[in-house]
Amino acid sequence: MSDRSHEVIFQPEGSRTRVQDGVSLLEAAARCGIVFDTPCGGQGLCGKCRVHIPHHAPEPNDADQNHFDLDELAAGWRLGCQTHVSHDMTVVVPAGSRMGDQQILTDGIERPTPLKPATQKITLSLPLPSVDDQRAHLDRLREALTQAGVNGEARFTPQALADVTDIFRGRYTERTVVLCEDTVIAVEEGDTRSALYGVAVDVGTTTVVGLLEDLNTGERLATASRSNPQTSHGDDVISRIRCCMETDAAVEQLQQSIAGCLNDIIGELCEAAQVAPEAIYEIRAAGNTAMTHLLHGVSPVSLGVAPYVAAFRESRVRSASELGIAPRSRARLRTLPNIAGFVGGDTVGVILAADMRESDRLTLAIDIGTNGEIVLGDRRRIVTTSTAAGPAFEGARIHHGMRAARGAIDRAEIVDDALHLHVIGGARPRGLCGTGLIDLVARLVEWGVIDIGGRITAPEDQPHTVPAPIRARTLKGEGGFRFRLFEASATESGLEINLTQSDVRELQLAKGAIMAGAHILVRKLGVSMGDIEEVLLAGAFGSYIDPRSARLIGLIPNLDEDRLRSIGNAASAGARMALLSTDVQRLADTISRESEYIELAACVEFQQIFMDQMMLTPVAP
Amino acid sequence: MSDRSHEVIFQPEGSRTRVQDGVSLLEAAARCGIVFDTPCGGQGLCGKCRVHIPHHAPEPNDADQNHFDLDELAAGWRLGCQTHVSHDMTVVVPAGSRMGDQQILTDGIERPTPLKPATQKITLSLPLPSVDDQRAHLDRLREALTQAGVNGEARFTPQALADVTDIFRGRYTERTVVLCEDTVIAVEEGDTRSALYGVAVDVGTTTVVGLLEDLNTGERLATASRSNPQTSHGDDVISRIRCCMETDAAVEQLQQSIAGCLNDIIGELCEAAQVAPEAIYEIRAAGNTAMTHLLHGVSPVSLGVAPYVAAFRESRVRSASELGIAPRSRARLRTLPNIAGFVGGDTVGVILAADMRESDRLTLAIDIGTNGEIVLGDRRRIVTTSTAAGPAFEGARIHHGMRAARGAIDRAEIVDDALHLHVIGGARPRGLCGTGLIDLVARLVEWGVIDIGGRITAPEDQPHTVPAPIRARTLKGEGGFRFRLFEASATESGLEINLTQSDVRELQLAKGAIMAGAHILVRKLGVSMGDIEEVLLAGAFGSYIDPRSARLIGLIPNLDEDRLRSIGNAASAGARMALLSTDVQRLADTISRESEYIELAACVEFQQIFMDQMMLTPVAP
Repeated sequence: MSDRSHEVIFQPEGSRTRVQDGVSLLEAAARCGIVFDTPCGGQGLCGKCRVHIPHHAPEPNDADQNHFDLDELAAGWRLGCQTHVSHDMTVVVPAGSRMGDQQILTDGIERPTPLKPATQKITLSLPLPSVDDQRAHLDRLREALTQAGVNGEARFTPQALADVTDIFRGRYTERTVVLCEDTVIAVEEGDTRSALYGVAVDVGTTTVVGLLEDLNTGERLATASRSNPQTSHGDDVISRIRCCMETDAAVEQLQQSIAGCLNDIIGELCEAAQVAPEAIYEIRAAGNTAMTHLLHGVSPVSLGVAPYVAAFRESRVRSASELGIAPRSRARLRTLPNIAGFVGGDTVGVILAADMRESDRLTLAIDIGTNGEIVLGDRRRIVTTSTAAGPAFEGARIHHGMRAARGAIDRAEIVDDALHLHVIGGARPRGLCGTGLIDLVARLVEWGVIDIGGRITAPEDQPHTVPAPIRARTLKGEGGFRFRLFEASATESGLEINLTQSDVRELQLAKGAIMAGAHILVRKLGVSMGDIEEVLLAGAFGSYIDPRSARLIGLIPNLDEDRLRSIGNAASAGARMALLSTDVQRLADTISRESEYIELAACVEFQQIFMDQMMLTPVAP
Repeated sequence: MSDRSHEVIFQPEGSRTRVQDGVSLLEAAARCGIVFDTPCGGQGLCGKCRVHIPHHAPEPNDADQNHFDLDELAAGWRLGCQTHVSHDMTVVVPAGSRMGDQQILTDGIERPTPLKPATQKITLSLPLPSVDDQRAHLDRLREALTQAGVNGEARFTPQALADVTDIFRGRYTERTVVLCEDTVIAVEEGDTRSALYGVAVDVGTTTVVGLLEDLNTGERLATASRSNPQTSHGDDVISRIRCCMETDAAVEQLQQSIAGCLNDIIGELCEAAQVAPEAIYEIRAAGNTAMTHLLHGVSPVSLGVAPYVAAFRESRVRSASELGIAPRSRARLRTLPNIAGFVGGDTVGVILAADMRESDRLTLAIDIGTNGEIVLGDRRRIVTTSTAAGPAFEGARIHHGMRAARGAIDRAEIVDDALHLHVIGGARPRGLCGTGLIDLVARLVEWGVIDIGGRITAPEDQPHTVPAPIRARTLKGEGGFRFRLFEASATESGLEINLTQSDVRELQLAKGAIMAGAHILVRKLGVSMGDIEEVLLAGAFGSYIDPRSARLIGLIPNLDEDRLRSIGNAASAGARMALLSTDVQRLADTISRESEYIELAACVEFQQIFMDQMMLTPVAP
């Protein structure tokens, strides 16, 4: 690589960065905090990261030519992920090409958690050293701790030892010892017990959510969230794992990327609640297995190849600053344990938040994202699995798919024989997000425009009850028919927005995978769908989904509405509970150790069930 | 400080370094590995760091003018410690101005130690992961460790976890786990059990000695030593502590300095024995309390002011690479515990090597250096103290004093009524080292040239048995008489070498302090000097001292020769024993916890005993 460097200016922000010749715009933008929307992982496939380079745009490549017409190419439109910096350039990034304005769910169900944090502050009054009492400072402290009924054998971190030498220079006799689990992480001057804070984080593949908690009161002081900047290395975990397979440096880059994101979040939390960053002593993080590995800087590559094995399962604790996180604090970072390959700490968080391990009610919890994690059980036994739901629900591989952001069609209703499409933010429509896709397909199945096998039927084959204006929107498309959602004149891009036959197939694959997983778990426990007393939908997607539509197309079991419950961001709720109580953390460890993981690839019946579950019909209880 | 920098070339090596304007030559030289001899701590007092700057020598200051005559100053002679770099310069450093050619004692008494190192290697044959066995790599390892009868709950360091992800990419099924105490520090491919090495180090104030041990056999493979480069911050611990009081940065500088020294030693050891640096898994270090603090990067300032309290007493373990030591290895560095303020891990090493804690014989151990550490006891009880013996035995504050290096007078004998002075290396004499000082004073006391009060008597007052040529060498000096050792024509510098009245006073202060300490310990145990069954002399000085001379002037108790024993570098021997066996390490911890420290400053009788013990007479048993 050449050692020439170039300046790139991103508009409309005017952010500048200097990068080496050949660096992709994706990476250059990420350095300015601008994250392109790249559901395809920056492979030039999805065409979402459109950018405008008004002057001296580099030569377009094949991917550019696939996504832009000649006029656009001539005007300087390119795919951000395909363009490499070869000279100083100014790049305009339209709002629609960016991540970061989608709905982020920060709240999860709250279960009252008795306060018993792993970190405690003990204030001691210590005699000054004298010729008659020449004990080493540390021995003096240890003995006072033992007298105070605290473990005097605790390990002191090097930083805590440095505190000891620093503050013992003064004539103060009152010190506060900060003990996290069995380690003294700080020794402070005077009585500082009133300042004791922790952060719970849900490290999602797409979004990262942080909660600031007062560990003295259990009160939540602030919430903050960010897009996960690792998205510049790929939208889903598989793309990021692939990056790590390709270059060893990627693990470190991804680790630094998420560390920077957590620092931004912690900075915002502290600012909002007027808490000093130094007063944060604990960070509890929940993420899927790959996110947990990357947060610790551990290579996730073995998760990317069969038999998909994690490097570690257990809850791991580190000094956060050693990971580049909260460097001004003494905080310890602990991740929730994983269960297996693709059933991670976020699922453990869901099980905690849903109280499954301590409940008598047979509960099915579904966390739908790029992967679908499915958990079934109660206090006696918990079985889990993970299915490659595919990125359909995140808007990827859907012709006009997009995330649930401004301009996304997120709901479809039938009112007086007319189809009403709701667009987020009241904007001109830009595309179709996951909840909109489900609603829309459900409505079209109700009318018979789509049959239960998933085929968009020809206008002439549609039931006579289908209103004429709807029928008129069923048009010839590639590989079958398409259904027009908006005409070109109504959309932001000036192009039609359609639901295509292949979009319906993607949805069928995704929902088939999820329901097949649920069926396998039900068989494993020797129960039936009807025995399930509660179905919990976790995650952002689960919160926005219309349960009626989901039941109708068989995305979730067809149970009474009162057995269905959305539990929101249960991963962060679980992380928060573990932060507030060591009892909950211990429960998390038990869940991690004792929950069973069912590998669908090893189930001979999976293929058949999967085929059955692709049908767009309700799942019989 | 200006941001200009200058080049300095040191001759005769021709070593070059570039330093900021205003940096002292002492520091510039240290960067080239050239350590000036500065017993005064670089304060311009001792005049030992003479350097020659042939061109453009900076203006001399008062200290230069005190140590050189006008011709020398005009020729460009200056004190290295007083000269600051203000332009590019070439500096000639004569051999006599350097540290580094003195005798270094690397051997201590050896006690057979049953091999039981803290580090063990366990080779495991592991089943490959499969769809039917998707346990995380770490769980797979832990279970195999448990089956092998090893603690499966051991903590894995982040590096060991990285190993796991690295080597599990291969199809190897055999791995070797390196377990140090309760921590897995590495996981290696194949069966690597034959490579298991450790290093024991004695971190002395003046010299650092390292031993390379094969932990599979207990065999010593190599020995290496260096001058402690911290000497550029002062010759004794007090000067170095003072540096740390003056600037916070000094702690880090001193830590890096000793880390670099250990790296040099480890490099030499590995080279000599053809051992890969990666195969070193443990470093066991013994040093005095201040050296131990600095090795860990912990400020020793509280040791520098009354009541002289250490930050920590206990044995501390760190990843060596975190301390900048052996960065290519996974070695853990553990320091021997201290006992109290100035009774450090080196003294614990002496107690271990001398087997005092497990012996029935009442033993007195004396470690004479700048500080004198004194230990008295047996298996029932051990008492210790430390006395400011002063630097007389290291040649400081002695008019023509020097370390035991080439050109030092190290022995004095009477043969046929003539005084024979032995010079190290057969060179022209340069000065008087500690053992020579003791021998010489003992001879002159025997003749009566010096009386038992320590006064050099006038020639006319000397006993008639004193031979005339000896009497003739007693000359008028400052504050009394001086005794001429060599005439100007015979010496390297072309100047007379004398023993002055104040030199004898320095010796009296030193030996008075040591014997007063021993007396206080004897009283503390309720015994008498005659009850002592063994007197052990530790350290380099103890090895070279003539016991007859030492007994005669009362530097050690006047016991039969068969009760006296020199135990050499017992600190490194003790560190080695702790390296070879966790039982010995545990014993060290017990010694540290249970040995009593007697603060002489708190003993009302100390002053009187000290005055008594300044007499140059044998100590009555």
